[in-house]
Amino acid sequence: MTATETKKEPSKEQTLAMSVKKAENLAEWYPEVVLKAQMADYSPVKGCMVIRPNGYSIWEAMQRYFNERLRELKVENAYFPLFIPESFFKKEAEHAEGFSPEVAWIANKDEGERLAVRPTSETIMYDMYGKWVRSYRDLPLRINQWANVVRWETKATKLFLRTREFLWQEGHCVYETKEQCDDEVKKIIMEYKALAEGLLALPVIVGKKTKHETFAGAEYSLTIETFMPDGKALQSGTSHNLGQGFARAFGINFLGRDGQSHVPWQSSWGFSTRLIGALIMTHGDDKGVVIPPKVAQTQVVIVPILFDKTKDVVLAECRALTDALKKDGIRVMLDDRDDHSSGWKFNDWELKGVPLRLELGPKDLEKKQVMLVHRHSGKKHAVSLDNVADVVHNELEQIQQEMLAKARTFLDASIVQVTTKEEFLDALEQKKLVLAPFCCESTVEEELKEATGGVTSRCIPLDAPEPKGMTCVWSGKPAKAMVYFAKAY
Amino acid sequence: MTATETKKEPSKEQTLAMSVKKAENLAEWYPEVVLKAQMADYSPVKGCMVIRPNGYSIWEAMQRYFNERLRELKVENAYFPLFIPESFFKKEAEHAEGFSPEVAWIANKDEGERLAVRPTSETIMYDMYGKWVRSYRDLPLRINQWANVVRWETKATKLFLRTREFLWQEGHCVYETKEQCDDEVKKIIMEYKALAEGLLALPVIVGKKTKHETFAGAEYSLTIETFMPDGKALQSGTSHNLGQGFARAFGINFLGRDGQSHVPWQSSWGFSTRLIGALIMTHGDDKGVVIPPKVAQTQVVIVPILFDKTKDVVLAECRALTDALKKDGIRVMLDDRDDHSSGWKFNDWELKGVPLRLELGPKDLEKKQVMLVHRHSGKKHAVSLDNVADVVHNELEQIQQEMLAKARTFLDASIVQVTTKEEFLDALEQKKLVLAPFCCESTVEEELKEATGGVTSRCIPLDAPEPKGMTCVWSGKPAKAMVYFAKAY
Repeated sequence: MTATETKKEPSKEQTLAMSVKKAENLAEWYPEVVLKAQMADYSPVKGCMVIRPNGYSIWEAMQRYFNERLRELKVENAYFPLFIPESFFKKEAEHAEGFSPEVAWIANKDEGERLAVRPTSETIMYDMYGKWVRSYRDLPLRINQWANVVRWETKATKLFLRTREFLWQEGHCVYETKEQCDDEVKKIIMEYKALAEGLLALPVIVGKKTKHETFAGAEYSLTIETFMPDGKALQSGTSHNLGQGFARAFGINFLGRDGQSHVPWQSSWGFSTRLIGALIMTHGDDKGVVIPPKVAQTQVVIVPILFDKTKDVVLAECRALTDALKKDGIRVMLDDRDDHSSGWKFNDWELKGVPLRLELGPKDLEKKQVMLVHRHSGKKHAVSLDNVADVVHNELEQIQQEMLAKARTFLDASIVQVTTKEEFLDALEQKKLVLAPFCCESTVEEELKEATGGVTSRCIPLDAPEPKGMTCVWSGKPAKAMVYFAKAY
Repeated sequence: MTATETKKEPSKEQTLAMSVKKAENLAEWYPEVVLKAQMADYSPVKGCMVIRPNGYSIWEAMQRYFNERLRELKVENAYFPLFIPESFFKKEAEHAEGFSPEVAWIANKDEGERLAVRPTSETIMYDMYGKWVRSYRDLPLRINQWANVVRWETKATKLFLRTREFLWQEGHCVYETKEQCDDEVKKIIMEYKALAEGLLALPVIVGKKTKHETFAGAEYSLTIETFMPDGKALQSGTSHNLGQGFARAFGINFLGRDGQSHVPWQSSWGFSTRLIGALIMTHGDDKGVVIPPKVAQTQVVIVPILFDKTKDVVLAECRALTDALKKDGIRVMLDDRDDHSSGWKFNDWELKGVPLRLELGPKDLEKKQVMLVHRHSGKKHAVSLDNVADVVHNELEQIQQEMLAKARTFLDASIVQVTTKEEFLDALEQKKLVLAPFCCESTVEEELKEATGGVTSRCIPLDAPEPKGMTCVWSGKPAKAMVYFAKAY
C-alpha cells in the first residue's frame, strides 16, 4: 500500500445531522435527507441518479411483494430489448407524438434506422405479440417486465422523482374482449393502491385521467395519486386500457372461438422508483427518513448501552436478543461498533429511518427489560425481555398502521371541495388538493394550467359523485365530472 | 370486435416437434430448441433478443439463489446509471482500449461530451466510490448491481450466448489490502462454481486467465469455464482482481488505521444470462430443453389420462395431488386443458423441459398409484399415492444429481492432456478441451489463435501441476503453466 497525496478527513459526527427543517423548506430538506440517509446520490451523468443500497433495498422489497402478486394474477416476467427502432414508434400515431420529444437515440447506425433507448416498451413488445398470438387459446397473454427506462428530461433532476433514467415494472396484457380488459385494468390499479397503502403506508386517490392527461395511445388511463406535504401531487402508478389501436398498428389478431379473426384489447400498467421518493417525502422528518416496517431492510436495530464493567454481559444479552428476533423472521441488526457512542448511533439510525430501536443497558438488564423506541413517533417504553419477539412483531405492525393513518390524516385534511373559480383559486393558493366540477375539455385544461402556473388535473376519482347541474370552475360550461387538481411533480 | 383481413392459422401439433437432432447438427438444433421451447426469441432489433417467460424464470431462480448468497457475503445491491461519460472510459487506459470498439453511444448531446451505454460499470461506479470512501471504517465496500449491459457485437447473434444486450450481475468491491482482495476474488469464483454446479448442473473448470485473456484493466482474472457438446468452451463467470489502477484513476483513497492515506484494492465479478444458454446446450436433447429441478419454474407437471366415464374422479384425484405437492413446497402444475390429448401434452412438456412428469389415469387410480417420468433419462416407474410428496422431493434431488453427473462425465471425457504440438492439434481436431504446457506469451497466443482458426486459451486451472521441465506446445519455449485450450463461444 502506498500513501497518496490527498488526505481525506474521516466522516465527522456533525456531518450527519440534517441542517434543514422539513416544514420550513421542503425543497431543500428533500435532497438533503435523500443524500444524508444514503438513499441515493447525484451521478456525474446529468439527470441520472445512483440508487444506493439503503434506497435500493426498498425497491427490492417492492419487487418481492409485487412478484408474489403477479404470480397470483397469472402474469409472467420476461425481458425485451432496451432498443426500439424508430419506425416502431411511428406505427401508433398518438403514442409517437407523446413520446418523441423525450427519447434518447443511439448514434451507432449499422441498422439502417435510428434506435431509441426505450422510454416505455409498448411498441417493441407488441411487435413480438403480433408473432406470438394466434388463437383465443393464447389469451389472455399477461407479461410483465422489470426494467430501466429513459426519458430525456430537460427539467431539473429531483432524486427518485424526476430523473432521465428510472426503474419500473411495466405490465402488458392482451385480451379477447373489452370487458376482460376493463376488468383487469381496474384490478391492477387496485393492486397498486394495495401496494402503496399496505406496503409503503402511502394513502392514494384512485381515479381516471382526463382525456388531456391520458397516456399517449390509450383509450383511458387509471391512476393512483399521492399528495406530498408541500401541496404537490405525485402520479404514482397508472393502468391503461389501450383499446385496439396498438393491436391494429402491430398486426396482433387472433382466431376467435367463432372461427373468425379478431383484434384483441390491450392494457399496460406501471409503477416506478418514484414511489420511493413519495415514501421519503411523506414519512421523513427533521431527523431523517422513516421507513415503513414492511419495506425496511433493517426493521429493528439493537443499540447496546456500554460501560466498561458491564460491557460483556450487556453485549451477550444483545446478541441473544438479536438471534431470537432473527429466528422469528424479524430483520434485525445489532450495532456493536465500539468506535461510536450510543447517542451517535441513535442519530445515525434515526437518519436512516430504521422503524424500531431497541436499547439495552446494564439497568435494563437488571430489570430484565429492554427499551423500545418508535422512529416515527418517538414513543419510548420498556418491555420485558420475555417474549420480546411477539411484542416486536406487534409493534412493527402498529408502526406500519400508524404511519399510514398519519399520512391519511394529512391527505384527508388536504382535500377541499369547491364549486366556484374563486374558491378554486383560493384552495390552490393554500396548496390544497382541490376537487372541482370540470368540463374536461383539453383546451380549457391547457388554459387553466397556464393561468395557474402549472396546476394540472390529477384524476376523476372513481368514487366521485356526478356533478349534477354544476358548472365548470374554469370555463363556466356544464361540468362533466368532479376532478382533482393540484400542481404535480 | 372486428374481424381483420389477415387470418392466422392456430398453432398446429406438428409445429411443436423438433426437426433437427442435437448430435447431428448442434448449430441448428440450438436456436430451434430455444425458439420452440419459448425460452427466447429474436427481436426486430439487430443483435438483441427477447427473453420469454420460460427462459426468464431461470434467470429469476438464479437471482433468488444469488441474492441469498450475496446477503451471506455482506454484499449490498444498488443501481448505477446506464450512461457513462466518454472521459470516464479514458481514465483507465487499458480498460478504455479493451472496451472502446464495442461501445454504443448516445446521440443526444446536451452533455458536452459523448455518453456511452454501459458495457460494464467499473468507471461510473468507481467515480462514486471516490466520493463515498473516506476511512478504513468504510471498507470493505461491497456492492452488486443487477443490470442490462450493451456491447455492440458485430458477429452473428446467438440467443443467450452472444447478443448486443444481455443481463448480468456485476459486483464491485473495495478493500484495505491486497490479501483481502485476493481472498474474496477467489471466494467469488468458488461461489460461481457452486452456482453453476449446484444450481444449473453445469460442471465447470476453475482457473486463471492468461495475461492475454485478462479483463481490460485487471491484475488478473479468475474464470469458470463450461464445455459445450460441440467442443466449444464458454466463459461462464469471471472474478477480477483490479489491483489499484482504477482506484488511482478515480481518486479512491482512504485514511488507514495508521492515520495515513492509502490507495485501496478493488475487485469486480460477474455472470450473465449466457449461463442459460450453457444450460440449454448442455442438458437439452432431441425432444427439447431439460431444466434442472432447482431452477425449473415448473418442477412437476401432472397430466391426467382422461376417459369420458372416469374423467371426474381422475381429475379430482389430480387436483388433490396438485394441492398436496404445492403445500409441500413443490412447484407443480396440473395440465387439465381438455383441448389436447395426453400424448400432445407429454410432448409439449418434454419440449419445455419440465424435469418430472406425473401421469394418472383410471388404472393408476385403481392401483392407488401414479406414474413418474424423468424428463432427462426417460426413466418411468409407478409409485404409491401415499406420501407422493416425499417421493417427489427425492426424485427431484436425484434428477438434479444425475444431470450434473452426466454433464461431468462428458466434461471429464472431453479433457485431453498433451505434451507435443502434434498431440495438441490432434486433440483440437477431435474437439477436445486440451490441457497443454504453454509459455503464456501474448504474441504466441495470438499466433496460435490465428493458425488454429480461433482456438484460445481458456484458463490455467487452479489445481494444475507445475509444467516442470516441459516446453510450450506452440513456441517450444519453456512452459510457464498448464493451460486449457479450445475454441470458445
